[in-house]
Amino acid sequence: MRALVCDNGLRYDPAYPEPALPSGEALVRVRLAGICNTDVELVRGYMNFQGVLGHEFVGEVVQASDPAWLGKRVVGDINAACHACETCRADRHTHCPHRTTLGIFRLDGAFADLLRLPIPNLYPAPDIVTDDQAVFVEPLAAACEILEQVQIRPTDRVVVLGDGKLGLLVAAVLRLTGADMRLVGRHPEKLALASAWGVAVEHGADNLPAGWADVVVECTGSPTGFALARSLLRPRGTLVLKSTYHGDLPVDMSGLVVDEITLVGSRCGPFEPALRLLESGLVDPTPLISARYALSDGVAAFARAVEPGVLKVLLQP
Amino acid sequence: MRALVCDNGLRYDPAYPEPALPSGEALVRVRLAGICNTDVELVRGYMNFQGVLGHEFVGEVVQASDPAWLGKRVVGDINAACHACETCRADRHTHCPHRTTLGIFRLDGAFADLLRLPIPNLYPAPDIVTDDQAVFVEPLAAACEILEQVQIRPTDRVVVLGDGKLGLLVAAVLRLTGADMRLVGRHPEKLALASAWGVAVEHGADNLPAGWADVVVECTGSPTGFALARSLLRPRGTLVLKSTYHGDLPVDMSGLVVDEITLVGSRCGPFEPALRLLESGLVDPTPLISARYALSDGVAAFARAVEPGVLKVLLQP
Repeated sequence: MRALVCDNGLRYDPAYPEPALPSGEALVRVRLAGICNTDVELVRGYMNFQGVLGHEFVGEVVQASDPAWLGKRVVGDINAACHACETCRADRHTHCPHRTTLGIFRLDGAFADLLRLPIPNLYPAPDIVTDDQAVFVEPLAAACEILEQVQIRPTDRVVVLGDGKLGLLVAAVLRLTGADMRLVGRHPEKLALASAWGVAVEHGADNLPAGWADVVVECTGSPTGFALARSLLRPRGTLVLKSTYHGDLPVDMSGLVVDEITLVGSRCGPFEPALRLLESGLVDPTPLISARYALSDGVAAFARAVEPGVLKVLLQP
Repeated sequence: MRALVCDNGLRYDPAYPEPALPSGEALVRVRLAGICNTDVELVRGYMNFQGVLGHEFVGEVVQASDPAWLGKRVVGDINAACHACETCRADRHTHCPHRTTLGIFRLDGAFADLLRLPIPNLYPAPDIVTDDQAVFVEPLAAACEILEQVQIRPTDRVVVLGDGKLGLLVAAVLRLTGADMRLVGRHPEKLALASAWGVAVEHGADNLPAGWADVVVECTGSPTGFALARSLLRPRGTLVLKSTYHGDLPVDMSGLVVDEITLVGSRCGPFEPALRLLESGLVDPTPLISARYALSDGVAAFARAVEPGVLKVLLQP
């Protein structure tokens, strides 16, 4: 099959081996896939991943032990867990120590004609949700995860830091809480996109007083975001960490104690609420689509994805 | 009056000026006061504090605008807030940006014959609570603060790291949750004291598997405690930070995101529950008392307080 492969760089392989199908899994023909910043980091060596990239997708089941799934249009939870260990039994399967992760860790991903996933990982896409929308379910679920972890009250003041793809989706979800929310970014065209959703935006944080926010969500993807997030947060506020980057950050831990700050690391989220937000039309992520490429042009697509001002780049097998 | 004064070191002053009494405040004659690690840090230059040290005390009201308080035996919340700003009106008076703090920041403290505090800061000590117990209310309230911030379930596995004064009081409070709790320390005689309360203790953490705990409370007072706390914590676990120390700590923030860890900084706590725990006998901190000194011997008392194996040193005016 055709695939976009990460092994000391990125290459298009027109004849990559098709996935073998263990029992309990499904074979999915990819209809559409999205490039995420994590994919770019993986190409740069993050996680030492070798294999087919891609974890944002919508596809069609073409083989499955349970025939009820055949032909279904699906999205898929990227964490393939053991469902047997203590972590899984405690309902924390995305943290299963034995997990593989689609296109990220020991499991070939979605930038290919076919992928495999365990059947419990699949979620049918409602007919009303287009492929262009469904391909955003994974990052939208990651935005929903914030509300799984932190109660955001309608009376809260919330800052979302960073106007990249994840920051925009987080703002699209958190604006539904009714909180007084500001998306802080540096890119007028990205902020304009959020404005069109009805999100209050700020070009830089100069207009926000120190300690203004009850909750700050740090989505800048950069170590420099933390200090700004911290300064915008009130005592006893909650700082949600969404950014991953290489290396350690020097943190004033005593300051966290004195101000009784709560930090919450936040990663993958629940797929069903993300699908509901798309189905109901409460969130429409399609304005984030910057470009589409054929899978065979995947290397060019990655080059485009890292250009300034570019948001979501899609790959079509 | 007699006082123990911090100004580029520590000195006993037999003729320090008595506090002037602003309206709405009370003058308290100190009956007993306790030396805290923070006092030792203040003498070393923390907060650049100059003035009378001491924030753990029990005393008797000798002057107050409201005569109902006269003669009452009281303990006192150390944060003197403005009760007018947004932070105070949001019921976070211990974080009031205009606050002074008894014996810590711009307010003379309890290592003296007399101290002053606003009347709303005072709490009458029930008759059944002895002076030896009441002098522990402030650090016991700091232990209670953990349960104000974090829900600890009876089915949780909890580690308290550090067998110093605060770690022991935290263990004394958290054992009441019914959780499977272990106090991890390095001092057999301190661990023995916790054992006598019915606390399960561990000399070092070697017997605890990595990721064992749902909640870890870091009370070591040292930057090295964080790495051990982190390794003992499961994914999606909660790490309560109680230690304050000088300088920044390098932290793997991406690891917090991937494991979805929650960090909770925790400082001063509520006095009323601490008094209830003493009144009911559910907590008896008096085994922590290592020594008593006259106020005039305060310099020697501080020297004793930093000796290895020494827990609470009391000062009697």
